[in-house]
Amino acid sequence: MKALEDKIKEQGKVIAGDILKVDAFLNHQIDVDLMMQMGKDIYNYYSDRPITKVLTLEVSGIAIAMAVAHYFKVPMVFAKKSQSLTLSDPTYVSQAYSYTKEKNYQVRVDQAYLSSSDCVLIVDDFLANGQALKALINLVKQAGGQVGGIGIAIEKCFQAGGQELRQEGYHIYSLARIAGFENGQVIFEGENEPKNN
Amino acid sequence: MKALEDKIKEQGKVIAGDILKVDAFLNHQIDVDLMMQMGKDIYNYYSDRPITKVLTLEVSGIAIAMAVAHYFKVPMVFAKKSQSLTLSDPTYVSQAYSYTKEKNYQVRVDQAYLSSSDCVLIVDDFLANGQALKALINLVKQAGGQVGGIGIAIEKCFQAGGQELRQEGYHIYSLARIAGFENGQVIFEGENEPKNN
Repeated sequence: MKALEDKIKEQGKVIAGDILKVDAFLNHQIDVDLMMQMGKDIYNYYSDRPITKVLTLEVSGIAIAMAVAHYFKVPMVFAKKSQSLTLSDPTYVSQAYSYTKEKNYQVRVDQAYLSSSDCVLIVDDFLANGQALKALINLVKQAGGQVGGIGIAIEKCFQAGGQELRQEGYHIYSLARIAGFENGQVIFEGENEPKNN
Repeated sequence: MKALEDKIKEQGKVIAGDILKVDAFLNHQIDVDLMMQMGKDIYNYYSDRPITKVLTLEVSGIAIAMAVAHYFKVPMVFAKKSQSLTLSDPTYVSQAYSYTKEKNYQVRVDQAYLSSSDCVLIVDDFLANGQALKALINLVKQAGGQVGGIGIAIEKCFQAGGQELRQEGYHIYSLARIAGFENGQVIFEGENEPKNN
């Protein structure tokens, strides 16, 4: 999606070699117009699928998941990372490993909000090693539901998550696909490839 | 706002005497259509004010703040409760007390995203003791900006936050104003009052 790639080039910052900071428009300050366009793009891509629910993980998946759900006109559910005071009813729980925090964390959804009749579109802001996505997929499976597709804002294609999940048969649509970083610059897939002429 | 009050009556659950659980539509599963209506209602109320930014606090303020910002066509910023790996630039920091967790927590925004030229609409899902709102107001003040108004989904009018903030001169618009709970039922302000006829 060109508007997102342009924004990443303009306002994204590469820090510590391989961390892309998109706080300016995606996960601290939110460019709501861009976010709604991104939601519409993911909706257009999956609009032929019988999606009943959009599922994401708190915190930074919420804004894009809401935009996607708005166009599908279905509820959005965000999985929680910690036990909440009001999350006292039975929950589906799965585990993910955080490479940045170097520890396991739990991801949970109240069983009332995922069911065997759900065709779930899983949405997140980043896909790198795929730990969060795998935990979300696991929640949908526990509920007996179907994963109708996966929509991602920014995929780091040089990390293994996307490839692993595609090999398992999941369909992933990513709005911006990063091939790597060079001298603090973002290189998207298809960029810097040999031209035909 | 009648649609929200109806939804609270239908799907809200009062637990432990005075906790209103709205996980079914507001802060775990999200009724996105209702959320967009709520955003539009807050927009309509404050549309004559020169709002440049919508500010909320992660996690459960994000969805409604995004809906409000969508109608204002301005950026949304969500303050963070914890130090993030990518939040390495200078931040405004303020402190709030959590009555449920019985401890202080810090609330921070990257200084790049609030400035002295901002007229900020602060939005949150709940207003009870006002601790979170006071911390957000403090961040706006640190930036030298102006609080253009406060928009709340659900105000617990029997707790002190709303009254204290109004006495300090802040304008608060709440979509649903809860007077109290009786036998596990929600009583809104204006309900159960003596009728004229």
